[in-house]
Amino acid sequence: MSIQGNHPTITLLISCPDQPGIVATISSFIFEHHGNIVESDQHSTNHHEGTFFMRISFSEEGFALTRSALLTAFQPIAERFQMQWSVHYSRQRKRVAIFVSKLDHCLTDLLWRWKSGELRMDIECIISNHPALESQAALFGLPYHHFPMHKETRAADQSRVLDFLAGKVDFLILARYMQILEPFFVNAYPNQIINIHHSFLPAFVGANPYERAFDRGVKLIGATAHYVTANLDEGPIIAQNVIHCNHRDSVEDLIRKGRDVERLVLAEAIRVHTEDRVLTFGNKTIVF
Amino acid sequence: MSIQGNHPTITLLISCPDQPGIVATISSFIFEHHGNIVESDQHSTNHHEGTFFMRISFSEEGFALTRSALLTAFQPIAERFQMQWSVHYSRQRKRVAIFVSKLDHCLTDLLWRWKSGELRMDIECIISNHPALESQAALFGLPYHHFPMHKETRAADQSRVLDFLAGKVDFLILARYMQILEPFFVNAYPNQIINIHHSFLPAFVGANPYERAFDRGVKLIGATAHYVTANLDEGPIIAQNVIHCNHRDSVEDLIRKGRDVERLVLAEAIRVHTEDRVLTFGNKTIVF
Amino acid sequence: MSIQGNHPTITLLISCPDQPGIVATISSFIFEHHGNIVESDQHSTNHHEGTFFMRISFSEEGFALTRSALLTAFQPIAERFQMQWSVHYSRQRKRVAIFVSKLDHCLTDLLWRWKSGELRMDIECIISNHPALESQAALFGLPYHHFPMHKETRAADQSRVLDFLAGKVDFLILARYMQILEPFFVNAYPNQIINIHHSFLPAFVGANPYERAFDRGVKLIGATAHYVTANLDEGPIIAQNVIHCNHRDSVEDLIRKGRDVERLVLAEAIRVHTEDRVLTFGNKTIVF
Amino acid sequence: MSIQGNHPTITLLISCPDQPGIVATISSFIFEHHGNIVESDQHSTNHHEGTFFMRISFSEEGFALTRSALLTAFQPIAERFQMQWSVHYSRQRKRVAIFVSKLDHCLTDLLWRWKSGELRMDIECIISNHPALESQAALFGLPYHHFPMHKETRAADQSRVLDFLAGKVDFLILARYMQILEPFFVNAYPNQIINIHHSFLPAFVGANPYERAFDRGVKLIGATAHYVTANLDEGPIIAQNVIHCNHRDSVEDLIRKGRDVERLVLAEAIRVHTEDRVLTFGNKTIVF
Repeated sequence: MSIQGNHPTITLLISCPDQPGIVATISSFIFEHHGNIVESDQHSTNHHEGTFFMRISFSEEGFALTRSALLTAFQPIAERFQMQWSVHYSRQRKRVAIFVSKLDHCLTDLLWRWKSGELRMDIECIISNHPALESQAALFGLPYHHFPMHKETRAADQSRVLDFLAGKVDFLILARYMQILEPFFVNAYPNQIINIHHSFLPAFVGANPYERAFDRGVKLIGATAHYVTANLDEGPIIAQNVIHCNHRDSVEDLIRKGRDVERLVLAEAIRVHTEDRVLTFGNKTIVF
Repeated sequence: MSIQGNHPTITLLISCPDQPGIVATISSFIFEHHGNIVESDQHSTNHHEGTFFMRISFSEEGFALTRSALLTAFQPIAERFQMQWSVHYSRQRKRVAIFVSKLDHCLTDLLWRWKSGELRMDIECIISNHPALESQAALFGLPYHHFPMHKETRAADQSRVLDFLAGKVDFLILARYMQILEPFFVNAYPNQIINIHHSFLPAFVGANPYERAFDRGVKLIGATAHYVTANLDEGPIIAQNVIHCNHRDSVEDLIRKGRDVERLVLAEAIRVHTEDRVLTFGNKTIVF
Repeated sequence: MSIQGNHPTITLLISCPDQPGIVATISSFIFEHHGNIVESDQHSTNHHEGTFFMRISFSEEGFALTRSALLTAFQPIAERFQMQWSVHYSRQRKRVAIFVSKLDHCLTDLLWRWKSGELRMDIECIISNHPALESQAALFGLPYHHFPMHKETRAADQSRVLDFLAGKVDFLILARYMQILEPFFVNAYPNQIINIHHSFLPAFVGANPYERAFDRGVKLIGATAHYVTANLDEGPIIAQNVIHCNHRDSVEDLIRKGRDVERLVLAEAIRVHTEDRVLTFGNKTIVF
Repeated sequence: MSIQGNHPTITLLISCPDQPGIVATISSFIFEHHGNIVESDQHSTNHHEGTFFMRISFSEEGFALTRSALLTAFQPIAERFQMQWSVHYSRQRKRVAIFVSKLDHCLTDLLWRWKSGELRMDIECIISNHPALESQAALFGLPYHHFPMHKETRAADQSRVLDFLAGKVDFLILARYMQILEPFFVNAYPNQIINIHHSFLPAFVGANPYERAFDRGVKLIGATAHYVTANLDEGPIIAQNVIHCNHRDSVEDLIRKGRDVERLVLAEAIRVHTEDRVLTFGNKTIVF
């Protein structure tokens, strides 16, 4: 929805043990402080003794509390319902670093969408283990940082990237970045690293999914955007899609068709992430 | 969602001028009477001076008010916010009459889904302007009523059907019923008559859409489920889908492929209608 | 295409080492014996030293050779090009046995499509390891044979089925038949047993794919129709499709949505199989 | 298929009255001159007295005839069967002019695909009635020609463009070019002007399709790539696709979602056009 783009909103993301009164309490709190709810969605894993999830957005204009006052005033409610919660202001765009290797189709697509205003985020920089795509970054006036990666020194190499990014960004996008991130790196950005995998996971986990899809003779290929966890290709799935293929498609054709799916799926995942629409629950996502 | 199937719920469908406090008031009302919200969705046509729509479901178990007490207690809230509203109990299945002519694919599909528990409705009877499908009804132990229709006596013919149905059913399904309903008939069931049209409306309004799709050389054909209004094929669209086709497809192939789309789209529209997920707004639907 | 339904055709399915002159030789052979080609499709795995695949259909009306004369006359061509080949007459409908257990959605769908003329095959009987669906078969006047299966006597149990079917059928459909076939059984019908698996293979091979899809949090579920080989869920894929799902879908919802995909995918696979459109190549299919 | 990209091929596009012997004659001709068929597809509008369409590709390597010798040698066959025919060499890339106005999403997508080798064509220049996208062309080193269009002088304005392009290009792409072409202009490039219309035609012919889709409350929006004829939005459809939408989507959301469909559909149409896969038949296409 484009609503948030036009009018600044404040969004609460909440999860807690399910019990009666949560919605009434939250919506009364917002009303009492002169917030007008513009979007609200909730989900319960089951009726009783389940977990309750909520995303509720209200207009910032007219709302009586400053950010810090809001944090203070909501705290008792959060404690009463044992909430995990976060507050997001639509005017405060998330800062991102995009990681790439040599393939440029996802990067090009993201930069074009970003420039056209489709993705609400500030691109701080582009990070790569190759110098190949530097000119792409230059076209859009974006800093490009080449951090070589070597098998033997991978931990130290990634440590340098981590240090470099400290305090600069809110989340990371792996736009066909062909490196496996170390656990210490992943843990620094929990559910804040979005990867695009070029298969409909859990099919074809790991390397060369198009070649393996060709060998298996599948009739559709796909792409999966997911949060990165310590387990390769096992993180919470944000978005997935597929496209049909047939015996006439060579591996090169699958790669060509797959590029279109990858781009759409990655852009969709970034859109919902930057609009604070994603909650995670164990290894799964709730996308409001 | 299957939640409602297992635990009886009460659902409120509400529309009113948008203003702050609606959600807080409704959710507090439910909470105060010991209802636990299991689903809630809302939509505003825009921020200010727009229209607010809401569907909110809470468990019937434990709720303190009887149906009549609920109606009385909620009335002041409804008046305060100038609401159009309705209350629906999931245990009270809607009663339906299915209208057919000679084509049986939609009817067969509906009866199978109904028998397997997929559609929560009570089929009161099957109405037809032909005797052709009587044996289908008999297989499922359903009454089949043959009401012939003649061009010259159409109004009187339809009047007889209307009288017959009076008090017996809550909504109607036109499962490829090849008759145009008179305005007085349509007005008797506002937004309670679901029709399946065999094209992706507004393309190919009217007769013979598959033949016209073939002649136009389209690369996809579709189906549209909509509420019937006095204007042919112009009512609020509930669900739509398409399937790809190409130059190899004859009109017969389009009809064959189209049958699958028609069945899926009609079933989806009935599912959301029977689960009280549809609000109409002018000539459009909001499907929560 | 509906062409073949109206005019009897003869179809040649051919594979051989690729070399120049194959198409010219085959099409000249057909022309010389007064056949008019109505459909022709070919595929080569690559330019040189690859494998050539062809499906070519010509009208039976006017063709100068009887079946046995055709077999004799074509033999020298087949030998010259080292062909694997088969001849199929559209008037000679394939005979099939449908295997089921307790779930009826695929069976019901197939029977309805068959009765409406959508699937060109003669259903000889329905085989089941349970008596549950006998009444379904009775509705369509089809023989239903209950062959119980026990873990301890599985080989003998399946042997009895094999003996029973001997000479009666051309191919088998496993319409959610919840038994693993013994290798000796599978080998009796090479590429003539079509199974529907309720996942987009190779994801969720084996038991309970919907439960596992739910646990993994995928955003789409699917179905796969494939030929059965000795390796579970590893046979050549004929058709696949998917449908979107989200966090609101319970396992029961996935099962409900999945039923629609299963039915469409299985029907599509049977349609191309009965129209002699499928060639296998290693573990893959070519669907013309 | 990527086959042609690796090995130069010669493609024949043929249509003629259907009769026995066409395939045999053509394939024998190719074989006799040492051509190896790599792809072949055919279509007949019906069995007898119909029209026959064929696309047949053979490797250029080893083929015995030069282009002019091929034209001469095939002429008697063409006359005998009353063929309309054309010959295409894959090594001879088509030259194209891309027409744009102010919207850049289709242009950007095409330029990226072209640069990555996905589209086999030579872009001669970009033509626009606005100077807005000149920098885009410059990024790819492409000439950009600004031809202003005025309602009062439209014929003369378009005449100037026509003169400018004379002899320079083989086909034209209207990548959201917001001008209606004059009949004399269209007639200069019969079935050689590809337009992208932002609706699933024949729905929403003409201006502002997204606004009208929003007003109608459709549940899917689409895009159509077609050859331009003298009748607005009525030309032969090459490719179409749709995407789902719902009540939450504003007009801006429909525009955003639609951009993705437009780009995919236009790229697909250009791909099949440049690979000589499209034949037209009246107002319809055959896409081999």
